[in-house]
Amino acid sequence: MEIVQSVRWSDDGTAVDIIDQRELPAREVRRELRTIDDVCHAIATLSVRGAPAIGIAAAMGLVIAADRPHSLDRNDLLAWWKNAADRIRSTRPTAVNLAWALDRMLHVADKTDGDADALIGRMRREATAILDEDRTMCRAIGEHGSALIPDGARVLTHCNAGALATAGMGTALATIYAACAQGKHVHVFADETRPLLQGSRLTAWELSRAGIPVTVLADGAAASLMATGQVDLCMVGADRIAANGDVANKVGTYGVAIAARRHDIPFYVAAPTSTFDPATPNGSDICIEQRSADEVRAGFGSLTAPSNVAVYNPAFDVTPAELITAIVSDRGVHRPVYDFSQWTT
Amino acid sequence: MEIVQSVRWSDDGTAVDIIDQRELPAREVRRELRTIDDVCHAIATLSVRGAPAIGIAAAMGLVIAADRPHSLDRNDLLAWWKNAADRIRSTRPTAVNLAWALDRMLHVADKTDGDADALIGRMRREATAILDEDRTMCRAIGEHGSALIPDGARVLTHCNAGALATAGMGTALATIYAACAQGKHVHVFADETRPLLQGSRLTAWELSRAGIPVTVLADGAAASLMATGQVDLCMVGADRIAANGDVANKVGTYGVAIAARRHDIPFYVAAPTSTFDPATPNGSDICIEQRSADEVRAGFGSLTAPSNVAVYNPAFDVTPAELITAIVSDRGVHRPVYDFSQWTT
Repeated sequence: MEIVQSVRWSDDGTAVDIIDQRELPAREVRRELRTIDDVCHAIATLSVRGAPAIGIAAAMGLVIAADRPHSLDRNDLLAWWKNAADRIRSTRPTAVNLAWALDRMLHVADKTDGDADALIGRMRREATAILDEDRTMCRAIGEHGSALIPDGARVLTHCNAGALATAGMGTALATIYAACAQGKHVHVFADETRPLLQGSRLTAWELSRAGIPVTVLADGAAASLMATGQVDLCMVGADRIAANGDVANKVGTYGVAIAARRHDIPFYVAAPTSTFDPATPNGSDICIEQRSADEVRAGFGSLTAPSNVAVYNPAFDVTPAELITAIVSDRGVHRPVYDFSQWTT
Repeated sequence: MEIVQSVRWSDDGTAVDIIDQRELPAREVRRELRTIDDVCHAIATLSVRGAPAIGIAAAMGLVIAADRPHSLDRNDLLAWWKNAADRIRSTRPTAVNLAWALDRMLHVADKTDGDADALIGRMRREATAILDEDRTMCRAIGEHGSALIPDGARVLTHCNAGALATAGMGTALATIYAACAQGKHVHVFADETRPLLQGSRLTAWELSRAGIPVTVLADGAAASLMATGQVDLCMVGADRIAANGDVANKVGTYGVAIAARRHDIPFYVAAPTSTFDPATPNGSDICIEQRSADEVRAGFGSLTAPSNVAVYNPAFDVTPAELITAIVSDRGVHRPVYDFSQWTT
């Protein structure tokens, strides 16, 4: 089983090597990012997407863009990095992982002694550490979560919480990759996930590529799939998890959870420690981003609704903790009653 | 308030005048059908769609195509009609209303005395009767159902059970048109209804055109809309209603009903008598059509999933009677426990 690597160092170490997600599912195209412009463009156009993957690409980009013949002294380089980080940060202002990774890199640079070459060497090690930590985190989620997936399981997922969203094997999909690596047979049903179709474009693509059988369905067909007895469990990712276990994830997740409860189907959430937000008591405190009306009205290059009609297009919804059978993190499997209020991340 | 007429006689009575639904929502284009080829093409390409509208267009088409200078005697004309009806019927073999309307027309022709001109005159009256009966049925549904819609109501609907699917003011949407005609203010939320987007393309268009405020959402956003307190009731159509009140309707309806129950939101179904199927005891006896994988994989002219991935694409799902607050027909408002086993249609 070969799992796609969405972000990695190029073989010679002179570029950030990404899979261009704009080309999926039609073509698998890799691109090498060598400048800050390259990195900003890739993030802004969603060539690289998924909170962990974006942060990692940004950290690696700071190294690559600086690591070439230049006449900068230490102070000039630090100033240059600060400016470059600001430019990258502004491409996706709401992505927490992006700011987190850039701040971590700048902090390390500031605290490192030596000349420009020494700084670049230290920064390369730090970016590699961020990359490796993400892969380790994905593997840990996979190992813990795979215990929830029996041999022969038919698993419904929503959106893309896979290798394409991380540097490793993903979060929700990590549990499936790990189960398959253990020799279990798993069939995945992937909600297409309107409006941006991360399920049909990305999840179906990366699972097919790894040889895991996958079936795509319109989001509205999930309840009927459950009613006909074709789903053994649901496994989704998370964008933020409140202290009481309420989960914000891609819009549509909540409806899947409601339908799963009606059919007594276990509903699992898988997410890294960084997704847990102990300072947010419950889901009602999570602010939900409203996105562009044209994602719904004209998302496929043609007009799919009257051009001036009003649109309700929240990016996320909140699934209350009481509908969640268990939450998988890199620390283990957590069961209700959830209390993450004391977590340190 | 002006409600679109999807099928009507042209002003001079020499054509079937339809709105070309392939052009929606971008443009309102009307077309005049004058030959059997015109009628077959319009039905096959979904220029005219919706079970009642198709049957009516077919019945009217038999008249229009025959009503021009010709040398056919009575027997030749009857044979010509039989052949024409077979050709039209084959365009949408599973549409019950299409076969019903054609059979009714042929039966009337057979039983009418006189020459070719007499037959054509009688057939024109019969097609007009079918058209008028449909409009009367829609109005009756609207009158009964509007009582369920309070002033200020925010109504969620799914798919298109509107004027575009009938010759009149629709079924589910008839209740909304009637409520608005009574001076009530109603705001409609229209699920876009993947894969074919009848909600965003058609429902949003016809309501906007009539001046009724409408907001479109991805199907996966409906549960979140309910959770945020923005839905007062749900109103959907039906493709078939079993004797016990189980309802087959466009896929996605069942998920809406489950979410409505969780939020204690009334869930109503509106449909004409012809939709009730007393011979089918319950929903498990309703055969669900599976449609083309490419509606999900490539429904917008571009590849939205890997080209060879498996797809689950049922046209309909079944909402069990216990989730349905009331069923509106042209005969009245029916409350649980439902028993339609003795209905004659």
